[in-house]
Amino acid sequence: MKIIRTTSAMADWSRRLHREGVTIGFVPTMGALHEGHRALIRAARLACDAVVVSIFVNPTQFGPTEDLSKYPRQLRLDQALCRKEGVDVVFAPTTETMYPAASQTVVTVPAMARRWEGEARPHHFQGVATIVTKLLSLVQPDNTWFGQKDYQQVALVQQLVKDLNLPGDVVVHPTMREADGLALSSRNVYLSRPQRQAAPVLYRALQAGAAAIRAGERRGTHIQRHMTRVVAAEPLATIEYLSVCNPNTLEPLSALHRQAVLLGALRIGPVRLLDNVLISFRRRPSRQM
Amino acid sequence: MKIIRTTSAMADWSRRLHREGVTIGFVPTMGALHEGHRALIRAARLACDAVVVSIFVNPTQFGPTEDLSKYPRQLRLDQALCRKEGVDVVFAPTTETMYPAASQTVVTVPAMARRWEGEARPHHFQGVATIVTKLLSLVQPDNTWFGQKDYQQVALVQQLVKDLNLPGDVVVHPTMREADGLALSSRNVYLSRPQRQAAPVLYRALQAGAAAIRAGERRGTHIQRHMTRVVAAEPLATIEYLSVCNPNTLEPLSALHRQAVLLGALRIGPVRLLDNVLISFRRRPSRQM
Repeated sequence: MKIIRTTSAMADWSRRLHREGVTIGFVPTMGALHEGHRALIRAARLACDAVVVSIFVNPTQFGPTEDLSKYPRQLRLDQALCRKEGVDVVFAPTTETMYPAASQTVVTVPAMARRWEGEARPHHFQGVATIVTKLLSLVQPDNTWFGQKDYQQVALVQQLVKDLNLPGDVVVHPTMREADGLALSSRNVYLSRPQRQAAPVLYRALQAGAAAIRAGERRGTHIQRHMTRVVAAEPLATIEYLSVCNPNTLEPLSALHRQAVLLGALRIGPVRLLDNVLISFRRRPSRQM
Repeated sequence: MKIIRTTSAMADWSRRLHREGVTIGFVPTMGALHEGHRALIRAARLACDAVVVSIFVNPTQFGPTEDLSKYPRQLRLDQALCRKEGVDVVFAPTTETMYPAASQTVVTVPAMARRWEGEARPHHFQGVATIVTKLLSLVQPDNTWFGQKDYQQVALVQQLVKDLNLPGDVVVHPTMREADGLALSSRNVYLSRPQRQAAPVLYRALQAGAAAIRAGERRGTHIQRHMTRVVAAEPLATIEYLSVCNPNTLEPLSALHRQAVLLGALRIGPVRLLDNVLISFRRRPSRQM
């Protein structure tokens, strides 16, 4: 396994492999790899000849009061996991390499970034869009894997890749969960034991919303109420949002047709927990032709 | 010569050629090709195995009151010129292909876009940065040629390519001029005969600034005054700006050291004329060690 530290070495490696007809699968990460990342790497490993994992805690997607400095960093452990999974290249650039002093260019996907996480974290998605553009341009992947857990991020990246004609298809991998339903996240390590015990309430709330839809409910506000009620019973959790949205535009839905994504964010202690459930369904029998 | 109309066909062509080890030279244009473009194409032809010329009048770099609808379009003539010059691919996409209805992503290079043309044309460089990102991502060139005439555009594109790690080196080709010094531009066709006769005043003004520097003048405001005086003598011309700048950042210089770019924009009738002169020089003898 090769560790690449500079942008020019990364670009050269990709160019050389493409010249040899090799396909490249890419898994961009901020490190602190867990089973969710492992699943992405394995999917990439199955689909492509060579796999690149980037490990870069991107400062431009953190707000000034956020956890950039204490975000978990464990490059040795991450490299060991990558080696074990047969990764070909770990791309672990320094911040100075990725953002030299004079760098100023930013990429924005305005409509996709406006709501939900964008309200809580004003410059977050500009940072995400900019770093993803840079990474895709350097790695030149045939396919790039993202976890479904950060649904808005994935939807925004899909729009970004289409809009800027960036290389590679975006592949979305289902969210990996603990046995009690909590979505895996590098930030779960911040939870105390009681907070950790409370955390699955988010997934339970989303499941309650999904159950209401399966039972025939099609009104957005009513589905939202089902979800809210579940979280209200958990004193350690504060709702940031629980919404019923169009899966492509992320605009809230008042009435559901065919597809919806239930998006949720809770604050539990020091952590913002994110999760989502994507649902496809037929119209209600009464409304079918 | 191949005419490519869709983004996917363009990306496929480039991928295939890279796989064959072929180098790609790229000349992005808005069509209405003239001797300036021809010089870029010939430079690309000499340096690379294959040459792609894009012809696309990019709507997002025109302001609402600008000349988008009447910008000269002559695809047949342009194709004939490209064929004659041994171009391999003319990439001439439709607006709908480049900007589908839902597209929303924008690329900005804020510091480079703020001054000069950016003041007169507020969203112009955002449009330029976005289309150049798309084109470079599709064409995947080894080198991309730009004319020096649009100096701020070239400097901004160089920053953009570095910041987003976009493929290919940016190569700047000297400005092509008419015998009387007027820089070639597709918009020169808008000039009436008296306006055309007045137009070389811009280059004369820049030359006067350069002459002052060669004579030892190092104060920005004084050099500016030399240039202004030349234009003031021409009743058909209105100064938009005449400035003495750092060639990399485009910030105005009060005192010159080693390098400067003289940037000029005049309005003559319906046309904004742009031109520039780049100067390298030693410090004044008295200031040398």
